[in-house]
Amino acid sequence: MSAEATYGATFRFPLRVYYEDTDSAGVVYYANYLRFMERARTEWLGSLGIDVADLERAHGVVFVVSRMEIDYLSPARLGDRLDATLTLIELGRARMVAMQDVRRGEAALARARVTLACIDRLSWRPARIPAVLTATLRGRLETTS
Amino acid sequence: MSAEATYGATFRFPLRVYYEDTDSAGVVYYANYLRFMERARTEWLGSLGIDVADLERAHGVVFVVSRMEIDYLSPARLGDRLDATLTLIELGRARMVAMQDVRRGEAALARARVTLACIDRLSWRPARIPAVLTATLRGRLETTS
Amino acid sequence: MSAEATYGATFRFPLRVYYEDTDSAGVVYYANYLRFMERARTEWLGSLGIDVADLERAHGVVFVVSRMEIDYLSPARLGDRLDATLTLIELGRARMVAMQDVRRGEAALARARVTLACIDRLSWRPARIPAVLTATLRGRLETTS
Amino acid sequence: MSAEATYGATFRFPLRVYYEDTDSAGVVYYANYLRFMERARTEWLGSLGIDVADLERAHGVVFVVSRMEIDYLSPARLGDRLDATLTLIELGRARMVAMQDVRRGEAALARARVTLACIDRLSWRPARIPAVLTATLRGRLETTS
Repeated sequence: MSAEATYGATFRFPLRVYYEDTDSAGVVYYANYLRFMERARTEWLGSLGIDVADLERAHGVVFVVSRMEIDYLSPARLGDRLDATLTLIELGRARMVAMQDVRRGEAALARARVTLACIDRLSWRPARIPAVLTATLRGRLETTS
Repeated sequence: MSAEATYGATFRFPLRVYYEDTDSAGVVYYANYLRFMERARTEWLGSLGIDVADLERAHGVVFVVSRMEIDYLSPARLGDRLDATLTLIELGRARMVAMQDVRRGEAALARARVTLACIDRLSWRPARIPAVLTATLRGRLETTS
Repeated sequence: MSAEATYGATFRFPLRVYYEDTDSAGVVYYANYLRFMERARTEWLGSLGIDVADLERAHGVVFVVSRMEIDYLSPARLGDRLDATLTLIELGRARMVAMQDVRRGEAALARARVTLACIDRLSWRPARIPAVLTATLRGRLETTS
Repeated sequence: MSAEATYGATFRFPLRVYYEDTDSAGVVYYANYLRFMERARTEWLGSLGIDVADLERAHGVVFVVSRMEIDYLSPARLGDRLDATLTLIELGRARMVAMQDVRRGEAALARARVTLACIDRLSWRPARIPAVLTATLRGRLETTS
């Protein structure tokens, strides 16, 4: 994996820490990093022309997290300006895998490997990723060659 | 309004303050009192035999807050054991009004006047409160006579 | 109150509705409008050169909501692009009052009158608004003359 | 590992799904399972005589999640009555590992392996688990022998 490819394939979404995000230990509450990462996923899909509300309406599918491995490396605090990042590393017929960070500057505060499943909105069963999206997503897939 | 009537008509729901509820100022985040009050409304309806999920499915309606006046009197903190209370004070065809407190012991930490509208789930327009509920709710209405 | 004065005195903060903000009734959960309004207050103070984290550290005070009256007028939904606005309408020694909307375009979806108290961080008692802020805030006060 | 040992060592905390927990896809929002699991950890420590607020005050430490691996197996929905469970599987000098489920009846809806670090509240560096807790925690450790 070249640094250049990574640079090109990594999406960054800026955000800020408000009181709502913190807890009485003085840091961002651990579940809220997942909210930050989901905002980045929604904005990343949006940057590819994919609206999550349309996805439900037009295709009857939603992307849901089926597995997450997350390391909490360093705490974020009130007022911090952060980036939530996303790099797509695997793309299958009904699932994809992304690496997502929450960073302050270049320092990763949390780092996650997120498996997303494409799910039929009504049956809540795995569904094929709509063909119109697959080509777009494939173009964003980070490759090591 | 007699104390006895109030006692009889006031519903109490116990809850506890976790890290998720607090913020970095060391107290419960102000929006989270609304979460506590909504839990009490759901449990109060449940105590009357009314399930909010069934209400959507069987009657196509939801109760939504259309107006809230809330005074924050004293802060709640991590680990506190609280009660969220509800007293129904007005009942109309498509709306009702409740007084809701969040209390620690007998001390009110927050006190709200909450107007609830019965809404058609699809059109999101005011809907008549289902007749099967009206009789039940009328029996819970606090009266001053 | 002239429209021009209002225009000049009203602060707008853009935000977007993500899954985290919605509930299973398909709309933004009612407590989350308070999160949106608090983001706007933090950014408004920031636009005046006042950092809420510094306020705690340097002056030992926090601004807390002591009273809120909020009308929920129309629901916001997944993907909506909204503005949270703030207009300062009263300024006292230890408190101020702001009008805050959550709007989609020019339509107000929620409208609140928010009383903010300046509080000593340790004693949690009313504290005088730091003098360095008062002049700045006075300049933002909407006047009708 | 015998079923009996597991039974004996597994802590269960009941909870219910409210509107606040759901999202517009009609299910519990993925970050909120982490809130449920944290409630169970707090109540589990409480059941061992360890109050998280006291832990901060008396020992100057907090337990924070340093790593989490979570599988989302099946969705929870509005009104569901769930249990959040905890089984302690590893205990070190400054960290411990627990298995945590969110279950509906006996069906696991989410299953996580949670690494908790004991952290100095001020420096936010790893700290030894207070000796008074270690003996208690050791008694709760699930063993396979």
